[in-house]
Amino acid sequence: MKPVCLVLGAGAGIGGNVGMRFARGGYHAALCRRSDEDGLHKLVEGIEGEGGSASGYLLNAVEPDSIEKRVAAIEAEIGPIEVVVFNLGAQIGDRALADTSYKAFEVGWRLATFGLFRLASAVCPLMEQRGKGTILVTSATAAVRGNRGQHSHAAAMGGRRMLCQTLNAEFSPKGIHVAHILIDGAVDAPDTLGKMLGPEGFQQLREARGMEHDGLLLPAEIADTYFHIAQQHRSAWTHELDLRSFSDRPWWNH
Amino acid sequence: MKPVCLVLGAGAGIGGNVGMRFARGGYHAALCRRSDEDGLHKLVEGIEGEGGSASGYLLNAVEPDSIEKRVAAIEAEIGPIEVVVFNLGAQIGDRALADTSYKAFEVGWRLATFGLFRLASAVCPLMEQRGKGTILVTSATAAVRGNRGQHSHAAAMGGRRMLCQTLNAEFSPKGIHVAHILIDGAVDAPDTLGKMLGPEGFQQLREARGMEHDGLLLPAEIADTYFHIAQQHRSAWTHELDLRSFSDRPWWNH
Amino acid sequence: MKPVCLVLGAGAGIGGNVGMRFARGGYHAALCRRSDEDGLHKLVEGIEGEGGSASGYLLNAVEPDSIEKRVAAIEAEIGPIEVVVFNLGAQIGDRALADTSYKAFEVGWRLATFGLFRLASAVCPLMEQRGKGTILVTSATAAVRGNRGQHSHAAAMGGRRMLCQTLNAEFSPKGIHVAHILIDGAVDAPDTLGKMLGPEGFQQLREARGMEHDGLLLPAEIADTYFHIAQQHRSAWTHELDLRSFSDRPWWNH
Amino acid sequence: MKPVCLVLGAGAGIGGNVGMRFARGGYHAALCRRSDEDGLHKLVEGIEGEGGSASGYLLNAVEPDSIEKRVAAIEAEIGPIEVVVFNLGAQIGDRALADTSYKAFEVGWRLATFGLFRLASAVCPLMEQRGKGTILVTSATAAVRGNRGQHSHAAAMGGRRMLCQTLNAEFSPKGIHVAHILIDGAVDAPDTLGKMLGPEGFQQLREARGMEHDGLLLPAEIADTYFHIAQQHRSAWTHELDLRSFSDRPWWNH
Repeated sequence: MKPVCLVLGAGAGIGGNVGMRFARGGYHAALCRRSDEDGLHKLVEGIEGEGGSASGYLLNAVEPDSIEKRVAAIEAEIGPIEVVVFNLGAQIGDRALADTSYKAFEVGWRLATFGLFRLASAVCPLMEQRGKGTILVTSATAAVRGNRGQHSHAAAMGGRRMLCQTLNAEFSPKGIHVAHILIDGAVDAPDTLGKMLGPEGFQQLREARGMEHDGLLLPAEIADTYFHIAQQHRSAWTHELDLRSFSDRPWWNH
Repeated sequence: MKPVCLVLGAGAGIGGNVGMRFARGGYHAALCRRSDEDGLHKLVEGIEGEGGSASGYLLNAVEPDSIEKRVAAIEAEIGPIEVVVFNLGAQIGDRALADTSYKAFEVGWRLATFGLFRLASAVCPLMEQRGKGTILVTSATAAVRGNRGQHSHAAAMGGRRMLCQTLNAEFSPKGIHVAHILIDGAVDAPDTLGKMLGPEGFQQLREARGMEHDGLLLPAEIADTYFHIAQQHRSAWTHELDLRSFSDRPWWNH
Repeated sequence: MKPVCLVLGAGAGIGGNVGMRFARGGYHAALCRRSDEDGLHKLVEGIEGEGGSASGYLLNAVEPDSIEKRVAAIEAEIGPIEVVVFNLGAQIGDRALADTSYKAFEVGWRLATFGLFRLASAVCPLMEQRGKGTILVTSATAAVRGNRGQHSHAAAMGGRRMLCQTLNAEFSPKGIHVAHILIDGAVDAPDTLGKMLGPEGFQQLREARGMEHDGLLLPAEIADTYFHIAQQHRSAWTHELDLRSFSDRPWWNH
Repeated sequence: MKPVCLVLGAGAGIGGNVGMRFARGGYHAALCRRSDEDGLHKLVEGIEGEGGSASGYLLNAVEPDSIEKRVAAIEAEIGPIEVVVFNLGAQIGDRALADTSYKAFEVGWRLATFGLFRLASAVCPLMEQRGKGTILVTSATAAVRGNRGQHSHAAAMGGRRMLCQTLNAEFSPKGIHVAHILIDGAVDAPDTLGKMLGPEGFQQLREARGMEHDGLLLPAEIADTYFHIAQQHRSAWTHELDLRSFSDRPWWNH
């Protein structure tokens, strides 16, 4: 039986590519996303087409019990979850305070902070019993600095980063590896950046950043580092790392 | 007419002392706290007794509209709010993940993060119209590092810190001074630390930290720095600073 | 006898203004700078002209024993040094690695890092004996992030910042207050910024940043915060704070 | 011809193991250390014994021209240096300020900060011409916080960290990958920790931290992450990451 890698937020960007990478590395990829059942099927079929093992689920993370039940069902039906990838974002674009509704602020937290808390509450007891497990958390620049217009996103991601540290403090000595992976730049991802910019804007950015097609973060390359982190020996674990394109500036140099 | 300094979280520790300090400095202190009407009256009377101006209000910050209505009422009845002090904490002691309920996690956010967002949403438009204003935010060690057992507190304070940065990014150029004040140590405060430790435990800690009675952070001394920050000329504003007792170790040296 | 405030780097910007502020606050200002004896005399006369007490010294901080002898002479001839302000910069403008000589890199360290180590080695034993003292260190953005072209400056300031933390760790419990003051923006200082930009460029920047003449950090206003930090009660000391103009962006938002 | 991986500081801990890992990955390992020619030979023979390619050199990094000449000789005699590992430490144990001589403070800088500057000055022009290259810098907790007694070490490492950022800012867009690798814990290394503690103390620590022999950072496992970082695609580079044992606390939780 293959170990399971559960991905929350498995679109065509980081989440889907990380799922593929773990499938290639011998895991069953359990892929969850909110919508686009077709895209989900293609992802699963793509993995199976190259000989891997995967399953796909629609999951609305803000809905009560959605995460908790999915974790329980996977453990019961597929097998022990060895790795979880929390890849839910909460970027809603730049909005002035006056244009940021209470609801938007709360939804940001509910997805990006509370979602991780719920996931951890569900998987940590299982991983603790088994004495091992890995929680990989996709993070964003907004987790380390609050930029103009990012009230909802930065508050949610700043909370998420501290939560990664408290989870690490409690569970690292119990054999659970928590990693906070700071994606510090634009990702070449049609489902998120592509939708935010529209097809033309997205293509323009890709060409502008081009430089042999790697001026944006390529999700397949990101996935290699996610996989490496999950394979680190427990005597040498990474808790926090950043990732960006060579041609981009780090957040502190802007 | 005196300028108004509104304090959310005006107990016998930092909040009350900051109110007194601003009253001494010529402000009307509008003091809000959740409970203990007697303590609130004493605070107001103490300020009036030394010739200052103050008013007191019970306010439950998690209740919808409580902050918003209080801001509106003070502006209408007392005068323009020049300084707000956001001093609501969300420390619930150390709790393992398994002992941290969804509700406890959410209440931490609702008080410590969303409360500030609501306060800022209410006062920033007023301050922006006047081209000036000061928002002083009491913060805690948990805003910069997540310790074991601090899941709810650290997630809430980490979000709060990033929110201070996004508020600063939008409103500093409009003349609004946002300061994130990191209280990095135990405060000699009967209402919070005192209640958490119980009367005997609190007295023991005070004696152990004694060293001429200043091994804990003294709220009256903290208040002097709050007042200074609010008086800084806008050509030389502080956004973030830490405060701790000389005999205590900074968070990074523990 | 007045307590002494010794300033290393007392030009017409932060250093001189901090000296004036402490003189107004009842200190004897002992002002040291590398060159411009005329400017130094004017500074001393300016302070004396408003009833304060000051003395001036030319001091080349990279010269062996220069700092050590000045400290000893002031203690012997004027009185106990209660406050030292280490205000030596090492900004040499942006230079590519290929244009940064070994010598330039070393001089940066010698001034900005080793200079503080020597100063601390000279004053800490004296302050420790007296059970009190204050060391205020002017710092720069380069202490917290390394920007392009800042090889020498950033390496020197990054070292200086860590040195402030080690000094604080050893001497804070002994009653010595060490503060690392991050000047995060351009200072309206003719001796440093003015010389770097030339008279016309300096004037242009002042006008561009103008906004009622406070879009640059005004040294006289900075000085108020230096003075406040030195007056903080030891139960509530600040180790690190930032200062910038309201209209400027913090380093993390660029 | 194999690409060259040059290691400065190739003892029996991180440096030697990283050399071995790169040799296994198809690089020629050029190993430099200050002393112990026997240990160096064994390292080279060990690599050759398993079919790898390596050469060893004694190199005193504080000596003028030592690094520069070694780089030139390797490029001339062996081949293009694709990866350099700067693994020189400057830990001298905890010393009070009064026990930290000017010389000790300077040597720390000369090894840990200036050494990297000299190495970068030598290799960056070569790597820039080739449009690629990797600089892996071993770092320590003291680079991010200054602890008691660490005056020399923290000042040197803090400077080194900022230098890594300035190098990254200039050379990342030119295809040179600079990584700052924070080793945040005790390494199971006989040459450094072993010598500092003595044979008995070292053995005691190993047993205390035991927990199946991985309570200390194991250098062979660290080496896997160094190798991964050097293989990252340039669209997804890591500049900073931490490494510690699962059973150890991160620096911010102490």
